Amino acid sequence: MTDTAWIGLDWGTTNLRGWAMSGDDTVLHTATSPDGMGTLAPDQFEPALLRLIDGWHNGPITAIACGMVGARQGWIEAPYAPVPCAVPPPGFATAPTRMPGLSVHIVPGLRQARPADVMRGEETQIAGFLALHPGWDGILCLPGTHTKWVHVSAGEVVSFLTCMTGDLFAAIAGHTVLRHSTGGTGWNDDAFADGLDVTISRPERLAAALFSLRAEGLLHRLSDSAARSRLSGLLIGAELASARPYWIGQRIAVIGAGHNSDLYLTALATQSAPAERASGDDITLAGLTAAWHRLKDGT
Amino acid sequence: MTDTAWIGLDWGTTNLRGWAMSGDDTVLHTATSPDGMGTLAPDQFEPALLRLIDGWHNGPITAIACGMVGARQGWIEAPYAPVPCAVPPPGFATAPTRMPGLSVHIVPGLRQARPADVMRGEETQIAGFLALHPGWDGILCLPGTHTKWVHVSAGEVVSFLTCMTGDLFAAIAGHTVLRHSTGGTGWNDDAFADGLDVTISRPERLAAALFSLRAEGLLHRLSDSAARSRLSGLLIGAELASARPYWIGQRIAVIGAGHNSDLYLTALATQSAPAERASGDDITLAGLTAAWHRLKDGT
Repeated sequence: MTDTAWIGLDWGTTNLRGWAMSGDDTVLHTATSPDGMGTLAPDQFEPALLRLIDGWHNGPITAIACGMVGARQGWIEAPYAPVPCAVPPPGFATAPTRMPGLSVHIVPGLRQARPADVMRGEETQIAGFLALHPGWDGILCLPGTHTKWVHVSAGEVVSFLTCMTGDLFAAIAGHTVLRHSTGGTGWNDDAFADGLDVTISRPERLAAALFSLRAEGLLHRLSDSAARSRLSGLLIGAELASARPYWIGQRIAVIGAGHNSDLYLTALATQSAPAERASGDDITLAGLTAAWHRLKDGT
Repeated sequence: MTDTAWIGLDWGTTNLRGWAMSGDDTVLHTATSPDGMGTLAPDQFEPALLRLIDGWHNGPITAIACGMVGARQGWIEAPYAPVPCAVPPPGFATAPTRMPGLSVHIVPGLRQARPADVMRGEETQIAGFLALHPGWDGILCLPGTHTKWVHVSAGEVVSFLTCMTGDLFAAIAGHTVLRHSTGGTGWNDDAFADGLDVTISRPERLAAALFSLRAEGLLHRLSDSAARSRLSGLLIGAELASARPYWIGQRIAVIGAGHNSDLYLTALATQSAPAERASGDDITLAGLTAAWHRLKDGT
């Protein structure tokens, strides 16, 4: 059996993913668990980790973790490094552990003073993207509950912008009158494009356009799937209007392989802003690997 | 004991208010109950009404109702009358009743085909405002969960616009990451004005401004009451940007006496669009009274 040299952990709010890595950075084992940060008290993180990596190692072991595990409500608060900043950022936090020989280091997040913004977890994806695409300069778009637009230059994060579009979509579709009009999981590309067009070109129309989804359902039998798709278009359009200084005239890569990333690629294409797609699968692990080398080399 | 000539009912989603009225339209009794439309199955409306008006009348009685009691999920669906339209709109719906001598009529809502919009309940407030201010022309703003902007001319509703700003505020403050940053009930006028200024002048900034409330809390100790007030300002500012064609250069009256109406008056004043305030207390009853006369006179 090849010895595990180190362990990588992607520890978010709802999930924990781990990789056992060899000395030459190949994957020996992987595992996932539902022990997300949101479900754990501070003294439950170490037991959750030991359950995940049971059988992966003998003797002392070092783990590198990123994500909400380093939030104030997590295992231990990891600092936010100020931008501009290289990634992974310097200044890992060391989590308190009981088991002799276990060391756990948490990658810092990033903060921007003005306009105030923070990220935690995405810095490691950005580091991974840069490790896989050395010398890449431009704008990274990381779609998610809180989508990040990140200006990367010369291996550093220069600035970034967060739009909580996924969070908004879930709150509006789930907890306003539109919950009666946007049910199900159906999709309608034309309705998405319609919504997008309204708010990219006329962002001031957002507030009035939302209730019209309900009214069109009552008066013109707009289907739930069309209303749902148009809501998504309205919100992503409003985000693109807000983030225009980031993406206009820039080289852009959208990270991620899912439906949500497709929507951002589609939306950018309508604005003559074609973007590359970067699969998200290996990016977090590449970022953790970069962090491991930074730690090991003491840089 | 003066005889009750008719009964007025303001029957919303969460509450039921009733007035026993004399033949010369003075109030004899009032009552409220928590039997809102949202809590009742179709066959529970009549018993809820009889509990409310117990002791108010002998013999046959007619009630006039407005609000969500006339929604599809209510007692019986009342139609939406198309605008332009006088208020109260013609074409009351008659609810099915079992008690001999009880007649219940429901005021129709209003609908607008393009842009699609609907109202149900506010048409009666508008009718009441016009009854109290004969000949008034201009824009009525009715703040609420779903705020209505209504163009009134020559006693008719010409057009209207709904912004679901109150609904959005509750969903964002209660069901997104901002729930951690906008708690409590405190208020900060300056933060409200700051938020307002951002989205009235630059509505495209809304999407990015929302997450910054969270980041400013983490990085700059923005208080929960300031974040809550700025969120309100951002959303009302976005609404004013959306509704600008309604209020710019117009005579405006804001209906209602509460904090929410104050916010709209403050917001409009910053745009050199001073508005009158019309207390909402008697307006619904005045609208129901106008509806009663329309019914009685067969107009």
